[in-house]
Amino acid sequence: MSDSRDPFTTRRGFLKATAAAGGAAMTAGAAHAAGDPLITEKQPWAQALGDGVDATPYGLPIKFEEDVIRRNVPWLTADPISSINFTPIHALDGTITPQGCAFERHHSGAIELSKSDYRLMINGLVDTPLVFTYADLERFPRENHVYFCECAANTGMEWAGAQLNGAQFTHGMIHNMEYTGVPLRTLLAEAGLDAAGDLSDKWVYVEGADASSNGRSIPMEKALDDVLVAFKANGEALRMEHGYPVRLCVPGWEGNMWVKWLRRIEVMDGPVESREETSKYTDTLEDGTSRKWTWVMDAKSVVTSPSPQSPITHGPGPLVITGLAWSGRGAIERVDVSIDGGKTWQTARLGAQGVKNALSRFYLDIDWDGSEMLLQSRAMDSTGYVQPTKAQLREVRGLNSIYHNNCIQTWWVKENGEAENVEVS
Amino acid sequence: MSDSRDPFTTRRGFLKATAAAGGAAMTAGAAHAAGDPLITEKQPWAQALGDGVDATPYGLPIKFEEDVIRRNVPWLTADPISSINFTPIHALDGTITPQGCAFERHHSGAIELSKSDYRLMINGLVDTPLVFTYADLERFPRENHVYFCECAANTGMEWAGAQLNGAQFTHGMIHNMEYTGVPLRTLLAEAGLDAAGDLSDKWVYVEGADASSNGRSIPMEKALDDVLVAFKANGEALRMEHGYPVRLCVPGWEGNMWVKWLRRIEVMDGPVESREETSKYTDTLEDGTSRKWTWVMDAKSVVTSPSPQSPITHGPGPLVITGLAWSGRGAIERVDVSIDGGKTWQTARLGAQGVKNALSRFYLDIDWDGSEMLLQSRAMDSTGYVQPTKAQLREVRGLNSIYHNNCIQTWWVKENGEAENVEVS
Repeated sequence: MSDSRDPFTTRRGFLKATAAAGGAAMTAGAAHAAGDPLITEKQPWAQALGDGVDATPYGLPIKFEEDVIRRNVPWLTADPISSINFTPIHALDGTITPQGCAFERHHSGAIELSKSDYRLMINGLVDTPLVFTYADLERFPRENHVYFCECAANTGMEWAGAQLNGAQFTHGMIHNMEYTGVPLRTLLAEAGLDAAGDLSDKWVYVEGADASSNGRSIPMEKALDDVLVAFKANGEALRMEHGYPVRLCVPGWEGNMWVKWLRRIEVMDGPVESREETSKYTDTLEDGTSRKWTWVMDAKSVVTSPSPQSPITHGPGPLVITGLAWSGRGAIERVDVSIDGGKTWQTARLGAQGVKNALSRFYLDIDWDGSEMLLQSRAMDSTGYVQPTKAQLREVRGLNSIYHNNCIQTWWVKENGEAENVEVS
Repeated sequence: MSDSRDPFTTRRGFLKATAAAGGAAMTAGAAHAAGDPLITEKQPWAQALGDGVDATPYGLPIKFEEDVIRRNVPWLTADPISSINFTPIHALDGTITPQGCAFERHHSGAIELSKSDYRLMINGLVDTPLVFTYADLERFPRENHVYFCECAANTGMEWAGAQLNGAQFTHGMIHNMEYTGVPLRTLLAEAGLDAAGDLSDKWVYVEGADASSNGRSIPMEKALDDVLVAFKANGEALRMEHGYPVRLCVPGWEGNMWVKWLRRIEVMDGPVESREETSKYTDTLEDGTSRKWTWVMDAKSVVTSPSPQSPITHGPGPLVITGLAWSGRGAIERVDVSIDGGKTWQTARLGAQGVKNALSRFYLDIDWDGSEMLLQSRAMDSTGYVQPTKAQLREVRGLNSIYHNNCIQTWWVKENGEAENVEVS
C-alpha cells in the first residue's frame, strides 16, 4: 500500500480516459435510486434466514446460472457417446475452467473406473515392465501445472464456413485447469528406460481403459519433457468424464493425446500409426495429401464477450471487451483487438503475465460509440508467432481440413448489441 | 525440450536418492501382474459404451469421491444457519479450491439474490452517492487474482486444545480461488472520493444484503489498495453460498471482511465498531483486554497428507508428505517439514513460486522407515515472518483467544500409518 498516492485524481483520470462519455450512463442507477424499491424498501432476503451450512455438502451453481453449462450439438455425430460438448466460454471470465463445465470428447463414452480397479502398465523397451496401482502412483513426487487442453477439432466447423453462432460452439472445445500428477519421465525411469538404447528414435504408445482405447504415439522427446500422469484437476480428483482416476496431460499438444482412464504406456521403436493418428487427427490439404504429426496447438484467441451468446445489453459508453488467448508453443505475450474487422488494432491488457501452455485472459476497455463493430482478436506468443487470418490459413491449408483451425475469429456486433459470426475478406 | 540430456541417468538417480529402499515396494504390482485379472482379463469397462456427452450438462464428482465434501460440526453453533463448514483439504492437492467444496460461513444463512434484484450503493463522504446495478459493474475494467480466504476462527478450536481429528476440521476454513472483479478503488473514484478530504483517516463500512448484514469497517488505505468487488470465482459466477452475485475480496485479511451479497459501501470519518469487530473478531488476551483490528492473516501452514483423515496405506518406502502454506503479509518463500516433532527440519519443495495472498502447495518426498513420526510444517513468508509454535503463540496471547491461531500443527503418525492430532511440548 502506498500512503502518498492520491487515488481520487489517479483513478478519476483513468476512468475519464477510458470512458469519457460513460459517467452519465453508469450513474443512471443513482438518479433512480430514490424511486427504486430495491433501495428504499427492505427486501425479503434481508428479513429472513437463508440456507444453513448443511444445505449443500457439495455445491452446484445457483439456479439463475442454469444456462452456463456444457452444450452438445446433436447433429455433429451419430451418437452422443462418440461426440463432444462445449465449454460455455462466453459466460466465463478469468482463466480457470471449473471441471463441471469443462468440455468433453469421448470416443466410446465416459467410463466408471474405481481407484481399486485401476492399473497402469508400462511395457515394451524397458528393463522391468511395471504395473502400477493408483496407490503406487501416489508415492512418486508430484508436480502442479495449469495447462489448457484444446481439441484439435476446436473451431474445425469454421473451415468450411459453418459459422456456428457462439463462442461456446466455435471455440469451446478447450479447458484450462490446474493439474496435479507425476511426470511421465519419472515412471519411465522407474521401469528402466535404458533398455531402450538410443532414445532419440523411440516413442511411447499410450492408451486408455475405455473400449475405444484411443491409442496415440508420442515421441520420446516429448514424453520425457513435460508429459504428466495426472490424477487431480483444480485441486480435486478428476471427474469421471475427464478420465477418473488418471489421465495424461500432454501440454500444448492436441487434446486427443491427453488419454483418459490411462491404462498402458509402451516404449516402442517407432509410432504405431493408429487410427487416431492416420485416418483421424491428420490434416488433408488442397492437393489431397495430408499433414500428420501436427500435435502442437498454435497460438489462437477469441473474443468471448461481446459475442453472439453474450450480447451488449446497454447503450453507448464504457464497454469491456474480453476474451481468451493461448499457445502450445510458448506463453502469450500480447493480444491485439480490432473493432473494425482488422483495419486497425489496439493492444489489449492481459489479466496476468502469460504462462506457457495455459490460457491468458485479455481485456480491452473501450468507450463504445454505439455503432456496429467487426470484433477480432489476434494472439502473439513468446516465439514471435502471430495468429493468422482465415484467408491466410486457407491459402496454406485449403478447405479440406477439420483440425488445427487457429485463425482470427470475427463477430459482427450490431448497433442493438447483438452479435453474429461472420467472415470478413 | 532438451535433446542433450540423458533422462534415464538423471531420473533414475533422482528416484534412487529420494526413495532408496522404495524400488521393491513400488514394483510389487509388477510381480503380481501375471496373476492380476485386472491385467490379464478384458474388463467390462473396455467392452461396453460409457456415458455420452449429454449425460451431465454440469458435472459433479464421481460417486467414489462422495467423502470429499464440505462437512460441518453440528455442536459448534446453535444453528447451521449461523455456522461454518470445512473444506476437505485433506483430500485435495494443488492449490485451487473448487467452489463446490470451498468452506462456508454464514451469519444468517445463504440468500438467493438474482442479478436483476442486485444493487450496490456507495454513499457517505463522496461527491455523488451512486447505486450500481449488476450490469453497471460489468462495465468497469476487471482484474483477475488468485486469493486465499481464511476465516479468522480457522484453527480456533485448537487454542484450548480441542484437537479435532483431521486437517479438514482444524484448518479447513480456507479456500483459494481465482477471483474476477472490479477494484473497489475504481468504484470509489466513480463516486467522487475527493469530497472526503484527507483520506488518511477515512474508512469504508461494507455490508451485505443478508439479514445479518455482517457490517465491517475497512481503513481507506486498504480499500484503495487491493480490495476487489468480485463476481466470478474460478472462472464462473460466484455460487449462492459464496455471495452470488457479488462479494468483496479483502486479500490477506480475515474472511469475515469478505462481505457476501455486497449491498453497501459507506465512506466514513472513522470505523463503525460494529458487533463483528468488537464483541466478535477481537482477540481476548490473558489479562482480559482484547486486541482489535487484527485483520491480517499471519503466515501459516498445515500438512494435509498424511493426516488423520488421510492415513498412510502402505508400508515403509517412498512417501509423499504434502500440505498448504499461506500468508496475508507476503508470498510464501519457504516451508520446512519436521518428522520428529520439531527437533530437526527439512526444507520442502514448493509446487510453484509463492504468490502474495494465495495458497502455496508444498511437498517433501521421503523414504519412510516405517517408524512413528511427529509431523509438523513451518511456513516462512517474504517479510521474514516465521510461523510460531503453539507454545510461543500461547505465551503471547494466552488461552482465551478464538481467532488468529496460526501455530504449528502436529500430527502423530503411527507405525500402522494412522494419524492423530497431538500437542508436543
